[in-house]
Amino acid sequence: MPITVKALQKTGPDQPFRVTTIERRDPRADDVVIDIKAAGICHSDIHTIRNEWGEAHFPLTVGHEIAGVVSAVGADVTDWKVGDRVGVGCMVNSCGQCIECRAGQQQNCLEGNVGTYNAEDVDGTITQGGYSEKVVVNERFVCRIPDALEFDVAAPLLCAGITTYAPLNRWGAGEKVDGRAKKVAVLGLGGLGHMGVQIAVAMGAEVTVLTRTLAKEQDALALGATRVLATTDEDFFSANRGEFDLILNTISADIPVDRYLRLLAPRGVMAVVGLPPAKQQLSFGSVIGGSKVLAGSNIGGIPETQEMLDFCAEHGVAAKIETISVDEADATYDRVVDGKVHFRAVIDTATFAGAAAE
Amino acid sequence: MPITVKALQKTGPDQPFRVTTIERRDPRADDVVIDIKAAGICHSDIHTIRNEWGEAHFPLTVGHEIAGVVSAVGADVTDWKVGDRVGVGCMVNSCGQCIECRAGQQQNCLEGNVGTYNAEDVDGTITQGGYSEKVVVNERFVCRIPDALEFDVAAPLLCAGITTYAPLNRWGAGEKVDGRAKKVAVLGLGGLGHMGVQIAVAMGAEVTVLTRTLAKEQDALALGATRVLATTDEDFFSANRGEFDLILNTISADIPVDRYLRLLAPRGVMAVVGLPPAKQQLSFGSVIGGSKVLAGSNIGGIPETQEMLDFCAEHGVAAKIETISVDEADATYDRVVDGKVHFRAVIDTATFAGAAAE
Repeated sequence: MPITVKALQKTGPDQPFRVTTIERRDPRADDVVIDIKAAGICHSDIHTIRNEWGEAHFPLTVGHEIAGVVSAVGADVTDWKVGDRVGVGCMVNSCGQCIECRAGQQQNCLEGNVGTYNAEDVDGTITQGGYSEKVVVNERFVCRIPDALEFDVAAPLLCAGITTYAPLNRWGAGEKVDGRAKKVAVLGLGGLGHMGVQIAVAMGAEVTVLTRTLAKEQDALALGATRVLATTDEDFFSANRGEFDLILNTISADIPVDRYLRLLAPRGVMAVVGLPPAKQQLSFGSVIGGSKVLAGSNIGGIPETQEMLDFCAEHGVAAKIETISVDEADATYDRVVDGKVHFRAVIDTATFAGAAAE
Repeated sequence: MPITVKALQKTGPDQPFRVTTIERRDPRADDVVIDIKAAGICHSDIHTIRNEWGEAHFPLTVGHEIAGVVSAVGADVTDWKVGDRVGVGCMVNSCGQCIECRAGQQQNCLEGNVGTYNAEDVDGTITQGGYSEKVVVNERFVCRIPDALEFDVAAPLLCAGITTYAPLNRWGAGEKVDGRAKKVAVLGLGGLGHMGVQIAVAMGAEVTVLTRTLAKEQDALALGATRVLATTDEDFFSANRGEFDLILNTISADIPVDRYLRLLAPRGVMAVVGLPPAKQQLSFGSVIGGSKVLAGSNIGGIPETQEMLDFCAEHGVAAKIETISVDEADATYDRVVDGKVHFRAVIDTATFAGAAAE
């Protein structure tokens, strides 16, 4: 029998959020039912539900940074039990058979994975996200949240955490270069960037934050960065030529790619996780000279997401958040877009209790 | 006392080649004198001496695919002796102290390496290349040519060979994917491409050649490719989506980068070694989706060049060449530009003997 739960929903891109009820499916044999404790607000949620990334399926509930407790399990579930502290990120299913799924890279499933919201599920319904009291998820897409991490600061790790951990891990932010720590630059200090800084520092890198101005300097230093450089400084590009081993670009704006590539030392890597709307301009000479790499990175697979959660717990890394109630979602979206949230807004789903469902 | 040797020289970008004499420096204590047996004609030679890459220093002798025999060594040279079969590629010196030099990546020397021709040498003179009877080179920039390789087919390995070997090696063309050979596509079948195909095949990859038409199909198959695909076919991009693990782009023309990136499987790599004159257009989404990589590659260091030569000797890989005499250089340049040479022209420097020096 389906489960009726409260959720934040929009009926159209320009409509306000409302608290309503939605139905979660009767758990299948391989499903886990999760009582959601906290749900992070990711910029992707905003792009999606405002129809900035194409036509969304309304009415819609978004949210793919989910932390909570297992409240029921399907008959065949053996890895999870009631009471387990768990998280769900950007995916809730995939084929499980293709080379990517078998390699634990479900985000690249050749059949296409099922997104946590606004995606066609295996039963033909449209998935509904985590701004809700409960969610029902295939057991393979659940990760364990270590006890050392509170639900609210863990929730953003399921997207912002893994999105930055995966490229930093793949491109060896924690490796030594000639006996010294790698010099990692994190471009942008929003929800993604603030996780990237902390994770890179925890890996052992020497981290520089690159932002438009020095307004966030104290924040960046508090997160463990060694220094902050203003990208609008007249001599920023010339003064820092060849300076970094790895640049993690977390911003979604157009950038002068060639100039950023010149900031890399030979064999350096620029990893990009932010998606600017326009095509970027690139001279192949900017990667050929110095044998440099421009690498994209798309979240991460389930095993790596678990690895990231364990890493964060071990190193005391967590999201820096503002907790909001369910009636603050609309106002918070505007603040996120204006860059006013430091650094992640997380919905306290306990506040559904006091909200009447329309 | 400087050594006077015959060389092919141009006095200006629009002048014909002429056989003349140039002076090679009196060998220093750490120098090796090489009697050149064969000198490959690289497209870079043409770009440089026709002033297509900026103003060259005239009069100029080019050539950075050099194979020959050691005929004298400086007082401190212990690694080389008279009679050794050796090659010289694109570099003849570097600082030797920086992190890149110490890592054997002299092509990325932070002080700038000294190119084999048209470059300012450590003594302030302009280096003169391999279209000549002899060359004098610092011992650290000499590689051993295995006995299994003839001089003429070895010469092009010093540039075209290492340029393709390095990215194929770095990006694991010889590794298995899910128990099968990697699917490697080589874009372009010129001097670089024909080496890339052979090397990738020798590494164990399943190689597909991508060319504008199928005109070179038999050539490609003879080099070991499994098949040839015409990039001008209407359904080329749609039919081959996600097909390749690695694409080696050897052409210097503009390409639709996003469409080529879609030919890659998740986590696939497009390595670029050809330098189109214009900026290319790239959507970051094309690398973020599937966590793909766009990697530049610039020749290779001296240790890897030696490794490549040994690899080629072991696997029976060599350049497919046309041997020309010194009086055919001008006509051959035109044929290279027209794509008429299969696949590399190599100057038989023995033909200097019969040419009167102007």
